[in-house]
Amino acid sequence: MTKTKRQMHLGVFWLGTGNHSAGWRMEGAARSNFDLSVIQSGARIAERGKFDLFFISDGLLFDAGDHPSFVSRFEPTTLIAALGAATKYIGLGATVSTSFSEPYTVARTFASLQQLSAGRAAWNIVTTSNDSAALNFSQAGLREHDNRYEVANEFVDVVRGLWNCWDEGAVVADPRTGQFLDPSKIRALDHKGRYFQVKGPLNMERSPYGPPAIIQAGGSAAGQDLSSRTADIVFAVVNGDPTSAKAAYDSLKTRVVKHGRAPHDLALLPGVMPIIGRSDEDAKEQLAKLQSWLSPTNAMTLVSQRIGYDISGYPMDGPVPEIKPTATGHQTFSQTILELARREKMTLRDLYNVTAAARGHWVIYGTPKRIADTMEEWFLAERADGFVVMPAYFPGAFDDFVDQVVPELQRRGLFRTEYAGTTLRDHLGQTRET
Amino acid sequence: MTKTKRQMHLGVFWLGTGNHSAGWRMEGAARSNFDLSVIQSGARIAERGKFDLFFISDGLLFDAGDHPSFVSRFEPTTLIAALGAATKYIGLGATVSTSFSEPYTVARTFASLQQLSAGRAAWNIVTTSNDSAALNFSQAGLREHDNRYEVANEFVDVVRGLWNCWDEGAVVADPRTGQFLDPSKIRALDHKGRYFQVKGPLNMERSPYGPPAIIQAGGSAAGQDLSSRTADIVFAVVNGDPTSAKAAYDSLKTRVVKHGRAPHDLALLPGVMPIIGRSDEDAKEQLAKLQSWLSPTNAMTLVSQRIGYDISGYPMDGPVPEIKPTATGHQTFSQTILELARREKMTLRDLYNVTAAARGHWVIYGTPKRIADTMEEWFLAERADGFVVMPAYFPGAFDDFVDQVVPELQRRGLFRTEYAGTTLRDHLGQTRET
Repeated sequence: MTKTKRQMHLGVFWLGTGNHSAGWRMEGAARSNFDLSVIQSGARIAERGKFDLFFISDGLLFDAGDHPSFVSRFEPTTLIAALGAATKYIGLGATVSTSFSEPYTVARTFASLQQLSAGRAAWNIVTTSNDSAALNFSQAGLREHDNRYEVANEFVDVVRGLWNCWDEGAVVADPRTGQFLDPSKIRALDHKGRYFQVKGPLNMERSPYGPPAIIQAGGSAAGQDLSSRTADIVFAVVNGDPTSAKAAYDSLKTRVVKHGRAPHDLALLPGVMPIIGRSDEDAKEQLAKLQSWLSPTNAMTLVSQRIGYDISGYPMDGPVPEIKPTATGHQTFSQTILELARREKMTLRDLYNVTAAARGHWVIYGTPKRIADTMEEWFLAERADGFVVMPAYFPGAFDDFVDQVVPELQRRGLFRTEYAGTTLRDHLGQTRET
Repeated sequence: MTKTKRQMHLGVFWLGTGNHSAGWRMEGAARSNFDLSVIQSGARIAERGKFDLFFISDGLLFDAGDHPSFVSRFEPTTLIAALGAATKYIGLGATVSTSFSEPYTVARTFASLQQLSAGRAAWNIVTTSNDSAALNFSQAGLREHDNRYEVANEFVDVVRGLWNCWDEGAVVADPRTGQFLDPSKIRALDHKGRYFQVKGPLNMERSPYGPPAIIQAGGSAAGQDLSSRTADIVFAVVNGDPTSAKAAYDSLKTRVVKHGRAPHDLALLPGVMPIIGRSDEDAKEQLAKLQSWLSPTNAMTLVSQRIGYDISGYPMDGPVPEIKPTATGHQTFSQTILELARREKMTLRDLYNVTAAARGHWVIYGTPKRIADTMEEWFLAERADGFVVMPAYFPGAFDDFVDQVVPELQRRGLFRTEYAGTTLRDHLGQTRET
């Protein structure tokens, strides 16, 4: 292993009751997404595993049929602020939608988190895909998909502009002269856009750690456009097909370069749920056990939500119907899942089994070696710069990954054995000034 | 001292560079409001002093002429989340305006903080008084004063309604049956108001610690109406005049009772800056030293901001002009300060000296005994249920208060020597279910 060898990046996607909808039913598994001690211990497991990132999704409404982690959850920015105080190295990502918040507030919140965590904060930008969320925010519905991304693009530009209003050294605080500020090092933003008018500057000095990192998940054309221009990490949806993953990877990296950035300035990390067993057969049995706990009703609700189309009326053992995703839904998820269904000639029952497992993300199972083999293959073929690991349940399935798969990756020289620095950008090997 | 003797409540108002505008120039004083370690140690001092509450203001714009604590500061909710992880007893209050945020978000944020801190969160409700803040939020200006309070009233009702959508026991999480939720214990809010339409329910279970506490500072009729109905703590502005303080206390408590609440359900805590010396003369010299560092320009800007009227053109040693506060500004501040000026026949220079010291709040100076005497007198005469202490600088002036004044209050049986519980409501001796 040489020092210059390309290194994998690993994130963990935290859903307290487990990423598998029925993960909480495993023996010893956490059964709450609203228990700080469970989440804190998870962040410490991630740190023990030398992970780059611990990251938390969000949702803006209650739905009784939702994934059990979604029905009762912390507000993400306050949660990662608390996690920052209990950890030292792990990057901490929180999701905030651009649909129901103000750029000035989001800029303050993440700059604050960046300072509180000493350089470990990341903002996962989402545009919100569930139309009903609008009803909690005095609005009748969401904007249409591509228009949401237009808003998001302007939103992100304002936030990054606000992070850049102060130069270093603007706070003088010289007790002899009484000069507290050097106002010549602070500029207004004076943003006058189509969706936002923000004067600035921010009421917060420039971060000594650089700006917070930006995570983006959208894989649609509009999503790729946003992420290739502004994101440091992309949380990608893959269905396990190497060809389409390679095409998506290359397409994104080409866009990154078009925006004048180096390819490695953006780390593309597909989500993957690893089911680890003593043997491949054992892992398969574990997955079967988890799947056996899915109720068809819940699973159908979940599939309908993910593909943005109500399939609850169709026969379970018939073919997956030909459907067009709605204009407001999760476009990439729908496309990825439906492609998989066509390729594998799935029934609706097969589809819900796959989708309900990891909410449409890729599931791999087998021995630690087999899982490491797959990850290595994807990483070396440049279909991925690493992975967002989505443990089926906590803490067991995450402990297993850190104790069994991480050492295997480390032995192969693919993943760090110690943190080289203390900030998320240190881990990512990225530098970014503005 | 009997167990039933009425007890004083103490909060500390944290401004990192000191509550006195020039506090940061004192030897050994913190010179930043953007340094977590300083603020964490302050929260621990508060805990050592058995304080009820540590609380943080907010502002929504940058102004180079502002108090040095205001120019660069953390976003308050993420800050108290981090402080919660470093403390065990102290109540933690954060300011969030009702003018530029969404009730669903605020409800989630404070319910999240309540769970993260195990029952120590408080929301300080402000309506925002600086017109220019609107320019950071795609708006041309603020609503007019009383209209802002109309919005705030509805906003608070929505937030409290959202905190009350879940009954206890709604999360079942029984791994044998697979039942995760009991949806019969969760209700929508279906709020359709003049300013907000919020369907609910919250995506967060009911707090086992009761709802977050509510702090309010507005002393205008509209402000008193809001606080007497909804607040647990009022942070009051007094100018040291016993008669007007007693009248304001009685008026607020009468309003509290009118709303069907017990008088002690709301703790009225005037802000006070104690300047502690070995002798009264020594304290007076300390204050003079701090005051000597005020620059007339900064002080005039500050006074103009606080009274909502630009006085920079008037002669410094002439009388305080007859002015009417604007409809959008800090009405209570203006009135309290201008009353004081008339009573004491102040020049503009006198006025800025008083205002710049504690931003219009009451300043008392002397030996620990003399300060305790004043606090005792005000407390026993029921002009106050306790105080929000505003140390001139940190940590020295706060250490002095905790080490010298608190023991004096404890000896007199006026203030706890140990925490009786671990939640803010335990400290306040209040119970509140919804």
